[in-house]
Amino acid sequence: MDKRTELGELGEFGLIDRITAETKKYHDSTVEGVGDDAAVIDVGDKYMLITTDMLVEGIHFNLMYAPLMHLGYKAAIVNFSDIYAMNGDVTQITVSIAVSSRFSVEAVEEIYKGIHKACELYQVDLVGGDTTSSTSGLIISVTAIGEVNKEELVLRKGGKENELLVVTGDLGGAFMGLQVLEREREVFKDNPEMQPQLEGVDYILERQLKPEARKDVIHFLKELGVKPTSMIDVSDGLASEALHLCKNGELGCVIYDEKLPIDQETYNTAREFNLDASVCALNGGEDYELLFSVKQEDFDKIKGSEHMTIVGHYTDKASGCSIVDRGGQSIPLTAQGWNHFTEEGEEK
Amino acid sequence: MDKRTELGELGEFGLIDRITAETKKYHDSTVEGVGDDAAVIDVGDKYMLITTDMLVEGIHFNLMYAPLMHLGYKAAIVNFSDIYAMNGDVTQITVSIAVSSRFSVEAVEEIYKGIHKACELYQVDLVGGDTTSSTSGLIISVTAIGEVNKEELVLRKGGKENELLVVTGDLGGAFMGLQVLEREREVFKDNPEMQPQLEGVDYILERQLKPEARKDVIHFLKELGVKPTSMIDVSDGLASEALHLCKNGELGCVIYDEKLPIDQETYNTAREFNLDASVCALNGGEDYELLFSVKQEDFDKIKGSEHMTIVGHYTDKASGCSIVDRGGQSIPLTAQGWNHFTEEGEEK
Repeated sequence: MDKRTELGELGEFGLIDRITAETKKYHDSTVEGVGDDAAVIDVGDKYMLITTDMLVEGIHFNLMYAPLMHLGYKAAIVNFSDIYAMNGDVTQITVSIAVSSRFSVEAVEEIYKGIHKACELYQVDLVGGDTTSSTSGLIISVTAIGEVNKEELVLRKGGKENELLVVTGDLGGAFMGLQVLEREREVFKDNPEMQPQLEGVDYILERQLKPEARKDVIHFLKELGVKPTSMIDVSDGLASEALHLCKNGELGCVIYDEKLPIDQETYNTAREFNLDASVCALNGGEDYELLFSVKQEDFDKIKGSEHMTIVGHYTDKASGCSIVDRGGQSIPLTAQGWNHFTEEGEEK
Repeated sequence: MDKRTELGELGEFGLIDRITAETKKYHDSTVEGVGDDAAVIDVGDKYMLITTDMLVEGIHFNLMYAPLMHLGYKAAIVNFSDIYAMNGDVTQITVSIAVSSRFSVEAVEEIYKGIHKACELYQVDLVGGDTTSSTSGLIISVTAIGEVNKEELVLRKGGKENELLVVTGDLGGAFMGLQVLEREREVFKDNPEMQPQLEGVDYILERQLKPEARKDVIHFLKELGVKPTSMIDVSDGLASEALHLCKNGELGCVIYDEKLPIDQETYNTAREFNLDASVCALNGGEDYELLFSVKQEDFDKIKGSEHMTIVGHYTDKASGCSIVDRGGQSIPLTAQGWNHFTEEGEEK
């Protein structure tokens, strides 16, 4: 270990590439390993899906504004979302939790109430886990197990040129909810007597604190007889996810700014914060919506659905990934979005 | 949350009982949930096994003496051990890791080298995970997936009165290795110029820093045609594990102090530390051996095996759990052992 490379130099995805470079495969049952929303294991009649996510205090949440029950709920949901992104159904989870002695038994119970609530709503069995001490913060690590009929599996790769890119729900809300919570935290720090200003932002706060996973859309698509050709969940922002799909599928894409589904509350709050709502939608993260591609001939089946918006289409790889702004100008799509968050970024 | 119960009042197992009390089951495929070494999921021809364990810096390891590669190796092994304890084989793992910026990319690579090494030796596929930042310490959360033929599954329950209790390898070594490392850490803190005294303790240091899981025993038992009737891995000390087996199987047990397998190095080091080697074997923890029961008629098949030692037998539940000391006296077995660690505990 003579050389020291800072983690920030590589970023999360660069680090994952590096630490998994040595990965070998010993079992034929391993169909897909690292590199999709979940691993795929052949168990005979079906594929089993496995995904895991860790939430760390001070990084993923702040206990000053995240209620413990919501936190447990969210820890489960973010993992469910990865299973739905494979077009599968979640069946079991395990939950590991590390807590310091500043937490009481009742506090840990609150977290589990949220987990049980998510399990009840999404019909998932809590089958195991680990509880341990921590020297400082709270850590929740969840592994979700799912299943999918073999012919129904959808990967990040698999899309084709000219197929439509569809996103569920609306985007940027969770990010704007976080901005409001952070603002109120600052206000509270300066003046603990102040009442937080949280009127008229219920929706975006819920998007941030108690997100849902799109199990409904997976079932809805089955009813419509539409099988996505590629899919990913939107956890890091639409831009980052579109780039993942294109990288895995060896494709390019065009996204249209004017098509981005943005809730009025998200839009208004972005204006208030002098932020461009489209940038928030592209890069905000934590929306836990689904981004997927469908064949052109499925257009009629999904157009007009309140759950889904066509935001663009795949192109050939050589054309790269771009976003077309409201003036018709094409701008390269980057994981940080086509524009950084700036004070001047207000929509005009 | 009016009432505040300290975590220490309940202990880990009490806490698990409380937070899983609300657990409901929605899927018939969930055969066994919380309460065994691994969860059991029916996937058709076979059972799939899932287990998860979290290692937290400052609680489970100290980076002053735990080399990063060994740490990665150990994080994998402790999970493998839980799958073997179900009489299954490990097939895949996922690894989630939280690191602060004081870690370099090269440091994280060292951890993964250990994980890859364990995967290679035990023939396991690394199929996923999560990498994230941490505000303070290093956290490694591993989930292991395994499989077992349905008729070969062994649970904690299932044993019967008079069946023999067998433990693999030897006990107490990992605990004594930890004592040596802690002593040297104290010496180093006081005088950084001092060379650590680690001669003649290679075996117990390896037991602590780079343990192995007993995949070999699982295969060995199959060759012998012996199927354990109940099994658990020895992670918290023989006493704690025997109590788990008896609780789950609604049985009692007798363990014989003189039968406890203790390596000479463990014994010598215990003497040096004025500790009773038997107490270390019963309560030391982290041995990652297997404790299981076999039918009386299998005695001939396993007697004389260098891998296994018969340490006692099951009794009826009403008789409780006890240990018979070298003087022939029967003492109730407790999770803290039949004697606490004391300065006066030296073997006479």
